[in-house]
Amino acid sequence: MDPVTVIGLNPRGMALARVLAADARVTVWDESAPGTSPGEGLLPAESLRAALTDASLVLMCVDDYDASQRILAQAEPHLAADVVNLTSGTSAQAEQAAAGTRARYLDGALMGHPEHVGAPETVLVYSGSAEAFEHHRAVLDRLGGATYLGEAPGTASLYEVAMLNFAWATQLGFLHTAALLGTAQIPATTVAPLLIRWLSATVADVISDQARQIDDRDYPGDQEWLELDAPLMDHLVETSRARGLDTALPELVRALTARGIEAGRGGEGFASLAEIIRA
Amino acid sequence: MDPVTVIGLNPRGMALARVLAADARVTVWDESAPGTSPGEGLLPAESLRAALTDASLVLMCVDDYDASQRILAQAEPHLAADVVNLTSGTSAQAEQAAAGTRARYLDGALMGHPEHVGAPETVLVYSGSAEAFEHHRAVLDRLGGATYLGEAPGTASLYEVAMLNFAWATQLGFLHTAALLGTAQIPATTVAPLLIRWLSATVADVISDQARQIDDRDYPGDQEWLELDAPLMDHLVETSRARGLDTALPELVRALTARGIEAGRGGEGFASLAEIIRA
Repeated sequence: MDPVTVIGLNPRGMALARVLAADARVTVWDESAPGTSPGEGLLPAESLRAALTDASLVLMCVDDYDASQRILAQAEPHLAADVVNLTSGTSAQAEQAAAGTRARYLDGALMGHPEHVGAPETVLVYSGSAEAFEHHRAVLDRLGGATYLGEAPGTASLYEVAMLNFAWATQLGFLHTAALLGTAQIPATTVAPLLIRWLSATVADVISDQARQIDDRDYPGDQEWLELDAPLMDHLVETSRARGLDTALPELVRALTARGIEAGRGGEGFASLAEIIRA
Repeated sequence: MDPVTVIGLNPRGMALARVLAADARVTVWDESAPGTSPGEGLLPAESLRAALTDASLVLMCVDDYDASQRILAQAEPHLAADVVNLTSGTSAQAEQAAAGTRARYLDGALMGHPEHVGAPETVLVYSGSAEAFEHHRAVLDRLGGATYLGEAPGTASLYEVAMLNFAWATQLGFLHTAALLGTAQIPATTVAPLLIRWLSATVADVISDQARQIDDRDYPGDQEWLELDAPLMDHLVETSRARGLDTALPELVRALTARGIEAGRGGEGFASLAEIIRA
């Protein structure tokens, strides 16, 4: 494997460097601690310039895009390598970073904790330079399951934030459901396995159907429809309130559904709320 | 199997009657169409009293608890059977129904569409009379996977509404995520398989961990914590707004998190929001 330089030695950056050190010459550099070696087989560089000398790939994983932009600007005169930037940020920041460098630039997002780096089931997504993705495919494959999302550098960041949205919504749903059943002394550890079974059996099917409906922009209400759901949502809000819980989540579901019905979608399925979210 | 009377011939009631007719003598009655036979092997009764004559179990599945209460009141003088009520309603309505009858009363909830009745993976939950549950276990097992939730008649209804909450939150999360990626021309049918894989690989683990934390009321922030999540939530809200989407869902997640941080839980994990929902 070609030599790699890892910039940024936070827990994620360290995990990336360690995984790659098994197969490649890995130079490391951190703005706040230049010249320190964070582990066996990792070659510390005394300066950013030294860190860039023989790299074919610079893997950046710093705390935010302010740091990433500062370092890329300093690196620019000495940069002969391709850049893969795993720093978390917005799409606009990724686009700005890509626009500011002559290097082939690939933006990436790592969907997991440091200990997940290197496992094949870990999801990493990349967007930006297709040539950089192809050229460094062997290195990227060592980090986890690599998916290329296209030429726009901002897509990987958008994907990250979209996945987080899904995770938070699902988890918030779980917390409310567990709180509700907790009021009847049903432990959350009793509820979780039933919900997880239901997630994989039923909800996964429902989401696949809804995805087709969203792409077709056609939401047949043959199994369930907004006007059928609405009184059940009233029950949910009333039950939550009667049991002393915060009602913000069920009220949000109900309010969006009411807006769907107002918009003439009462006979359409739940997925038609995608049109309300987009409106 | 003992003879069963099914009251209520909406699509769910019909599905219940048909599944049971394979193994039991099934009498059917519907308030709005007494004496009609909805299918082969189902014995129509001309009156409610006739429908109750030789039943060992009355399975009720009518449109709402108003109908259920009206029918139970009429049935009361002639009722020698146990009652299993699969009508959808609130916990309070189930408790009222149980209190109003001398019969052994079991309240139930069917988590699926009519076509799921009879499949072993279909989730049905029951609460109320333990004797009725045990006595009619063979019949109930024919309808799907039967879980008994305890003596309180309201628990099954609570469970139903809690499961719906989880389903709606998860689906709403999906719709927002799909809308967000849709702004970058990524089809929902491309997103769904990745999310489903992530649901079963990662989110299922996370929920199991969170369930333990909720039961222990202890939310260690060793992998993620509210103050770490907060700026990512800002990104999500800003990105959603910049791409013209409704921001109610990500704003709700952010607002609850802000309340968690204000309450001194900034170093605790996301599951600590259960305490905010309960407060």
